[in-house]
Amino acid sequence: MNAEPKYHFASDNTSGICPEAWQALEECNAGYHPSYGADAITAKACERFRDFFETDCEVFFVFNGTAANSLSLASLCQSYHSVICSDLSHVETDECGAPEFFSNGSKLLTAKSSLGKLEPADVERLITHRNDLHYPKPRALSLSQSTELGTVYRPGELAGLCGLVKQHGLSVHMDGARFFNALAGGTASPAEITWKAGVDVLCCGGTKLGMAVTEAVVFFDKALARDFEYRCKQAGQLCSKMRFISAQWQRILTDNVWQTHASRANGLARKLADGLGKIAGVQILYPVDANAVFARLPDALKLKLKSCGWQFYSFIGGGSRLMCSWATTETDVNAFLADAGQS
Amino acid sequence: MNAEPKYHFASDNTSGICPEAWQALEECNAGYHPSYGADAITAKACERFRDFFETDCEVFFVFNGTAANSLSLASLCQSYHSVICSDLSHVETDECGAPEFFSNGSKLLTAKSSLGKLEPADVERLITHRNDLHYPKPRALSLSQSTELGTVYRPGELAGLCGLVKQHGLSVHMDGARFFNALAGGTASPAEITWKAGVDVLCCGGTKLGMAVTEAVVFFDKALARDFEYRCKQAGQLCSKMRFISAQWQRILTDNVWQTHASRANGLARKLADGLGKIAGVQILYPVDANAVFARLPDALKLKLKSCGWQFYSFIGGGSRLMCSWATTETDVNAFLADAGQS
Amino acid sequence: MNAEPKYHFASDNTSGICPEAWQALEECNAGYHPSYGADAITAKACERFRDFFETDCEVFFVFNGTAANSLSLASLCQSYHSVICSDLSHVETDECGAPEFFSNGSKLLTAKSSLGKLEPADVERLITHRNDLHYPKPRALSLSQSTELGTVYRPGELAGLCGLVKQHGLSVHMDGARFFNALAGGTASPAEITWKAGVDVLCCGGTKLGMAVTEAVVFFDKALARDFEYRCKQAGQLCSKMRFISAQWQRILTDNVWQTHASRANGLARKLADGLGKIAGVQILYPVDANAVFARLPDALKLKLKSCGWQFYSFIGGGSRLMCSWATTETDVNAFLADAGQS
Amino acid sequence: MNAEPKYHFASDNTSGICPEAWQALEECNAGYHPSYGADAITAKACERFRDFFETDCEVFFVFNGTAANSLSLASLCQSYHSVICSDLSHVETDECGAPEFFSNGSKLLTAKSSLGKLEPADVERLITHRNDLHYPKPRALSLSQSTELGTVYRPGELAGLCGLVKQHGLSVHMDGARFFNALAGGTASPAEITWKAGVDVLCCGGTKLGMAVTEAVVFFDKALARDFEYRCKQAGQLCSKMRFISAQWQRILTDNVWQTHASRANGLARKLADGLGKIAGVQILYPVDANAVFARLPDALKLKLKSCGWQFYSFIGGGSRLMCSWATTETDVNAFLADAGQS
Repeated sequence: MNAEPKYHFASDNTSGICPEAWQALEECNAGYHPSYGADAITAKACERFRDFFETDCEVFFVFNGTAANSLSLASLCQSYHSVICSDLSHVETDECGAPEFFSNGSKLLTAKSSLGKLEPADVERLITHRNDLHYPKPRALSLSQSTELGTVYRPGELAGLCGLVKQHGLSVHMDGARFFNALAGGTASPAEITWKAGVDVLCCGGTKLGMAVTEAVVFFDKALARDFEYRCKQAGQLCSKMRFISAQWQRILTDNVWQTHASRANGLARKLADGLGKIAGVQILYPVDANAVFARLPDALKLKLKSCGWQFYSFIGGGSRLMCSWATTETDVNAFLADAGQS
Repeated sequence: MNAEPKYHFASDNTSGICPEAWQALEECNAGYHPSYGADAITAKACERFRDFFETDCEVFFVFNGTAANSLSLASLCQSYHSVICSDLSHVETDECGAPEFFSNGSKLLTAKSSLGKLEPADVERLITHRNDLHYPKPRALSLSQSTELGTVYRPGELAGLCGLVKQHGLSVHMDGARFFNALAGGTASPAEITWKAGVDVLCCGGTKLGMAVTEAVVFFDKALARDFEYRCKQAGQLCSKMRFISAQWQRILTDNVWQTHASRANGLARKLADGLGKIAGVQILYPVDANAVFARLPDALKLKLKSCGWQFYSFIGGGSRLMCSWATTETDVNAFLADAGQS
Repeated sequence: MNAEPKYHFASDNTSGICPEAWQALEECNAGYHPSYGADAITAKACERFRDFFETDCEVFFVFNGTAANSLSLASLCQSYHSVICSDLSHVETDECGAPEFFSNGSKLLTAKSSLGKLEPADVERLITHRNDLHYPKPRALSLSQSTELGTVYRPGELAGLCGLVKQHGLSVHMDGARFFNALAGGTASPAEITWKAGVDVLCCGGTKLGMAVTEAVVFFDKALARDFEYRCKQAGQLCSKMRFISAQWQRILTDNVWQTHASRANGLARKLADGLGKIAGVQILYPVDANAVFARLPDALKLKLKSCGWQFYSFIGGGSRLMCSWATTETDVNAFLADAGQS
Repeated sequence: MNAEPKYHFASDNTSGICPEAWQALEECNAGYHPSYGADAITAKACERFRDFFETDCEVFFVFNGTAANSLSLASLCQSYHSVICSDLSHVETDECGAPEFFSNGSKLLTAKSSLGKLEPADVERLITHRNDLHYPKPRALSLSQSTELGTVYRPGELAGLCGLVKQHGLSVHMDGARFFNALAGGTASPAEITWKAGVDVLCCGGTKLGMAVTEAVVFFDKALARDFEYRCKQAGQLCSKMRFISAQWQRILTDNVWQTHASRANGLARKLADGLGKIAGVQILYPVDANAVFARLPDALKLKLKSCGWQFYSFIGGGSRLMCSWATTETDVNAFLADAGQS
């Protein structure tokens, strides 16, 4: 008999809303507020972002990562442009053609990636290998931070890639579905791994950090944000009761709430990797820079874990993926490791 | 000195989340659940819809009304088709071209509308006045229930319009941003004012009924729902933490919660209209079938109310619009009427 | 018994290719030439345009007017923008939603037009009546020259409209399907009724002037032409055997060929109008500034003409439309008038 | 000093219009004809296609191959669907994202191809490797006939691929930019390598066969052609002076004109390959089934040929491509071979 399915490590979106975000929701529920973002809470949340990134950026809230990525790429590209990204990038592999849809046809050009990170030489080849008008003109670079393999670009790596593509006139988009995990995984400041390194627009993940139904789109190059509010509205991404989104952001960017949650998730991922790494036959595939563990598990072990109810996937990166979130506890990790037979 | 602004009647989306929806959110927050709608709560919520409409319909949850309307119209139309709607319809006047965007170009053909409702003769003229390929081919009728002027189509009116357009091969879309108010405003059953009258797809408003961030798309013609889950995903309308949407729906369709809230809003709208109607110079413009009051107010009265802080708009229908919601109280209405000088 | 149908006046595209264009085709048919516009003939044709307009404009050749108009509007607008045009404009009434398709959703906002021409007050109202993000933001003005009713904007009228909309940040598109007829109908120079008056992009009609399968898109604001060659390619509007298009243009812009044909068509249209105007019960509806005659014909007369085989349409402007082209002869006009019973 | 550039073998679209097509143009130029395809010539041309394919197919004429391929794929797919094709296919490599544009986002999934032809196992893998809604759903197979490497699918190969994908519910599109060369290269009938093998829609190349500015879209599955005339119109692909397109088709499908031209081009390509193959260091890369020769040329030879003025490209297939067309003569081939030093 199989155990009850356990979704703890299946993804970082199987968990709920963290206590701080919950409290923010509760507080903003009272009374009447102007809709569509004209409320005071939303203004404050945007201000909080500008403090956080130490720059006068433009901030927009949308419902999910697919929309955040696709709309920001569409603001960089016309339909006949192309976007350079990793062959493992979420925009390429898991958004059902959303970037192509919102841009009305921009093509994604993919490069093989080492540990989930793009290499400058590969990027340059994609920019330069065709320059005739029978092929879409490269116009944007899309990076994931942390990457889909749980690794994190260092500031120097980012600056190198951004500098390179800007020489060729491209803009830089960062898919930060797990941006806070990437941030908590290093020592650089928010500014240092974004606009100071050359990122023009960041999609900043809220849902996976512990919020409900929101991502922020942050334009460091404000010229690119022109009329973006119209784009969001037309694309079905303008929330009427916006305060329920912005209040969460305001709270999570206060008192380093983001850091508490992201750091704990990262720490537990490392603990999980360390534990698994001690089991015979298990291979940890990539550096655990953030909140994801990729491990090659012996078939027998996989079977055993599944029979204990643990749910996890092997859809990417050649191994099993285990995700930690704000909600993951030391107990969860220990239980998993115990079932995995580590002693 | 002006008073603090009061958004009570400015729209039915200035209010928060109703207690029942809130409780549902709270209950589903615990633990880990499969994402993207594969959870048990979502399955139950869909089942609840099928009970509610007494038919085997297909149900999808999206984030807002713009998306619900646009995606369902896109599933009815190809880019070279057209949609017939009222010149006052929300899809025409307040969605920033979203139907055209999601359908990649379907044109809206508008008819003047009497009391917000389309007339069969006008609809037929739009269907038949051009049949050459230099003009988009009519493919769908879009009705709002309740209408943008707060009126409600009777079952016979619906059946007449639906029957007419189906003779010409069109499908029928209903914009039900305030569907529950329309329902509570009459005696017909949910089935009677939808699929039994000929509606093929209903966008069923959650936000204005007292939920956060959700509308349901209900396909009564299941063939039209083919691959709609892909359409939602690609369009950035698939919620990863879906349970936070579906749990609200499950609750609101239980124990007639929807009715309690919608009826009270409707009742208070009528009370507001009755009160205003007694004031000299005030003209109530349309039947108050649901939760909206449209009134022509003397300029002095408008000024007085605004100086008391009351926020309301005059963007449609030639008068001032006052909306009641689940959160409106008798006290709110009395306060407004008192400020309006009614004794 | 009905006569053989006669399409002489049904449209200005029922005629064939004029002798000069034909000769150009013949000459360029010999030998091998680089494809996709890299040939010398195409370079010369573009140069000819720059001479013609006395300015350093960017020139692109596409296959028809629907493409020319839609692609140039798409280069002015994003999907959430809108285009202001006459309710009689071809882009609104006869392109099957092509502008919406190519722009991925830009809405056309229409104004009633007097004699086919837009009035500044109407245009300004459309620009200013909404400025919230629930409605597409006006971004371009589209004018037809000559208009769909056969009238021609004077330089001062154009300058007034262009000046007005530029104050509001809009660009100006001119649908010149019959540009040469408009030009031949007045005394202004090509430059004076285009860029000197404020037009940013002109769609310059070749087919109706006597060529096969081509329109030119002329950008006077070269910044707007950025990457337009990619847009054409992606949109299926890049001709591989381009010389067969450009050779015609080169010839037609030489030795005032355009003027010979356009003037004759205009002159015969005036003759036709004069003749019809003398018949009892016939009303000439609009000034015959170019090559179109709109006439209200008594039913009996219409019947008589149709029984003689004459084909013409009543789809616009409230009357019957009769078009003259490069191919129309004095004999044709006399034959029509004779059948119309004018003596 | 370099010689005058010679474009004879650079592509099969550097040549002009063949005598038979020219004569057809000349004949149809006289008089007035109904526009937009309502003329008798167009009706006859469609009828000719039905005879040619021995079936009641639907036929549409568009301006070029990019449009033909993209519009027909868009009629098979919704935006969230995907198209399986070779990584060398023209739709993937040389249409600047047109398929994605016209379909509003359909993704192309590419397989490596052996000799330009898809292998069933690769196709099946692409169909089955993902079946979650985060990835576009495969909906069409696109084959090129002849392929971009100049090879030709045999009827059995086609039937195998078509049968396979139809089991999975996909439709089959054939890019026949060089369909007549493929046909002339084998012994199968037009029907046998199209609908009898399972092809649903064929894009039938006219330009490369010796016509000006036209491809035909032939729907063997007539249900897929529903409203396709509207799609063409909206997409800027409806020719007003249609007779200039259809008259060429009518002629080319008469008296086996197509065969004369295609066979000669194929024969000269084989002659060219045979000659080149005798030169030391030259490697003919693929079977010369149609009118293309791919050869690996020693650098010195390449240089020598270029200095003689010969233009050719190395953009695909790892070698130099030399194309023959209806216009190629034995003299051309001999001249090229002489310059190549073959004796």
